Amino acid sequence: MSTSARGSHTPSVTMRDVAEVAGVSVATVSHVVNDKPGARIGEDARRRVQEAVASLGYRPNALAKTLSQGTSRFIGLVADQIATTPFAGQIIHGAQDEAWKHGYVLLVANTDGNDEAEAEAIAMMLEHQVHGVLYSTWYHREVVVPEALHATDTVLVGCFAAEGGLPAVVPDEEQGGRTATEELLAAGHRRIAFINTTTPSPAQTGRLAGYRSALEGAGVEFDDALVFPASPEQGGGYATTPRIVASGATAVFCHNDRVAMGLYDGLREQGLRIPEDVAVIGFDNQDVIAAHLRPPLSTVALPHYELGAAGVRILLGIDADTGSEPRLIVCPPILRQSV
Amino acid sequence: MSTSARGSHTPSVTMRDVAEVAGVSVATVSHVVNDKPGARIGEDARRRVQEAVASLGYRPNALAKTLSQGTSRFIGLVADQIATTPFAGQIIHGAQDEAWKHGYVLLVANTDGNDEAEAEAIAMMLEHQVHGVLYSTWYHREVVVPEALHATDTVLVGCFAAEGGLPAVVPDEEQGGRTATEELLAAGHRRIAFINTTTPSPAQTGRLAGYRSALEGAGVEFDDALVFPASPEQGGGYATTPRIVASGATAVFCHNDRVAMGLYDGLREQGLRIPEDVAVIGFDNQDVIAAHLRPPLSTVALPHYELGAAGVRILLGIDADTGSEPRLIVCPPILRQSV
Repeated sequence: MSTSARGSHTPSVTMRDVAEVAGVSVATVSHVVNDKPGARIGEDARRRVQEAVASLGYRPNALAKTLSQGTSRFIGLVADQIATTPFAGQIIHGAQDEAWKHGYVLLVANTDGNDEAEAEAIAMMLEHQVHGVLYSTWYHREVVVPEALHATDTVLVGCFAAEGGLPAVVPDEEQGGRTATEELLAAGHRRIAFINTTTPSPAQTGRLAGYRSALEGAGVEFDDALVFPASPEQGGGYATTPRIVASGATAVFCHNDRVAMGLYDGLREQGLRIPEDVAVIGFDNQDVIAAHLRPPLSTVALPHYELGAAGVRILLGIDADTGSEPRLIVCPPILRQSV
Repeated sequence: MSTSARGSHTPSVTMRDVAEVAGVSVATVSHVVNDKPGARIGEDARRRVQEAVASLGYRPNALAKTLSQGTSRFIGLVADQIATTPFAGQIIHGAQDEAWKHGYVLLVANTDGNDEAEAEAIAMMLEHQVHGVLYSTWYHREVVVPEALHATDTVLVGCFAAEGGLPAVVPDEEQGGRTATEELLAAGHRRIAFINTTTPSPAQTGRLAGYRSALEGAGVEFDDALVFPASPEQGGGYATTPRIVASGATAVFCHNDRVAMGLYDGLREQGLRIPEDVAVIGFDNQDVIAAHLRPPLSTVALPHYELGAAGVRILLGIDADTGSEPRLIVCPPILRQSV
C-alpha cells in the first residue's frame, strides 16, 4: 500500500452538501447535527436537515463535533500491562462495552510499567480532550498516581492511590478468600491449608483475612502452621506439596490458579487424588488453566470485566463516587470438580 | 466524582496566550505549531513562538491540528477477540509500540466477533479520520473484509481476505511446523508423532506441511498413521495419549501448547517421563503454560508482537506492500526441557 493510494477514497459527504439538499444554511445544518442547546431551528427546517442527512448518508465529523462542543466522546484507559497480560484483558472488554453503551469510545494505551510511555500516553489522551481516564493495573496494588492525571477526571481500576482522593474500584479480596474457604468447609473439611503468596499486596492480606474469617464463622480454630507462603505461580505450589501432605490437611485453598496447577503436579507425583484425597480450590479463574486442569479446578473469579465496567460508570457519573474508600467488586465462586 | 467537578480543572494555555507572549498574531502561532507547508514565517518570529510554547507549556490541541491538516495521527485496530484472548494481546502491544515510534496513536476496538459491534467500531474510526485500520483476528484464518473498510487503508493482521486485494501479515505456519519437527529430528528421533487440530485452518494445513517437509529433509518417510487429529486443547492431547504410546513414537509434535499440556497429563498417568521416554514439542509459546509445565515445554512461538508491528509498518508505507500474497512472519523455536 502506498500513501498515494489514499487519494482514491470516495470523497465524503460534507455539511455543505446537506445544506444544499435541505435548502438551509450550513449553520442550520451544524446546529441540528450537533444538537446545539439554545439554537432556534424551526421544525420544518430541522426535519429537512434530518432527511438530507439520511438520504446522503452524511456522517458528522467526530473531531469537528468535539471541538465545537469542547468535550470529546473519548475515555482513556491507561494500563500498565493488562492489554498484554493473559487474563486481565477483560478489564478492557468491560470498560469498552460500558463506554460504547453510553456513546463513548475507549482510547487504550499500554505502558508496560514504563514511566516515559505512561507520560506519553497521558499527554496523548489530554490532547484528545478525553472525558476522563481509567488508570488501571493488572494486579491489585497501591499506586502513585501520575501528576498529569490531576488535569482530568480519573478513576483507578484494580488499584488505589497511596494518597487517596481518587475514586477506585478493586476486587473484594477478603470476600473472595472467605468464599473459597467456605466452599471447602461446606464440603466437610476442617483441616484446610492455605498456600498464600510471598508478595506483599492487598491480595496477600485480604485473602488471608477471608480465610480466617471463614474458619472463625465455622468454629474452626485458625492454625498458623497451615498457612504456607510460596511464590505465586506453578513452582510455588509444586514446592509446597510435601509440607501440605505432611500437615495432614484434607483441603487446600491456593492463592491463585497457577499455584493450584503446581500443587496438582505435586499431589499427582505422590499418588494422591483430587478431590478424593485432597480437595483444592484456586483463585482468579484464570483462562487457559482453570477449566483445563485434570480434574477441572474449582476457583473464585477475579471480576475483571466488572471492574472495567464499574470504572466507566463512576467516571461518567452513572454510579456514585465511592468517596475515600475503593468500591469493592465481588469475586464469585466458580465450581468445577476439585472440591 | 460528579460531572460538576470537571469545572475545577486548570484552564489550559491557549494559542492566544502564546501569541501574546511571543508578540505575534494567532495565525503565526498556528502556522508554526502546525508546521504548515508554504507558510512564510521569519526565523525570529518562529523562534519567539517556540520559546513561548516552551515557557508556557502550551500543548497544541490534537483535534484542531487534525482538522487543519485533514488527516489524523490515529491508527485503528479492530480486533475480533485479541484484547480479551489470553495470548494474542501482544498483537496490540507490537502495533502500539510501532505506531508510537512514528507519532501515531492506536485506537483499539474489540468486537467479540459481533458484526454490529464491528460496524460501530469501524464507523467510529472513520469518524475520527484514522490514517488507516489494522483488522486482526486472534487466530490465523480467512476473513470476509467488512465493506466499510474499503473507505480507508486497511492491513489484515493474522488473517487474509478470501477475495484478496488487501495487504496481510500472517504467521509462517509451515516454517513453524518444520522448525518444531527439525528440533525433534536433531535430538535423534525418527519415529515422530504429530497431534494435529481437527479445525480446518491455515495452521492445520501449514503445520502438517512443515512436519512433512522436515521429515523429507531428514530422509524419514512420512507415515500417515503417526498423524493424530484431536481437538486443539488439553482434552485433545490427553485423549490421544494411549494411541501415541501404542504407535511406538519416541517424540510428539503437538499442534499447540494446550494439547501438549494434556499430553503431559496422559503420559504421566502412564508412568512415562518427558523427555526421557517421550520428547514433546508444542506450538504457540503460550504464556502461563509453556514455561510452567513440568518439565518446561520446548515450543515454537507465534510471533504476535511482530505481526502487530509489521502491520503498522505496512500501513504507514515503511515496509513495502506485500502484493497479492500475505507476508509471512517467522515462528521462532523456544527451547526448554521437553526435547
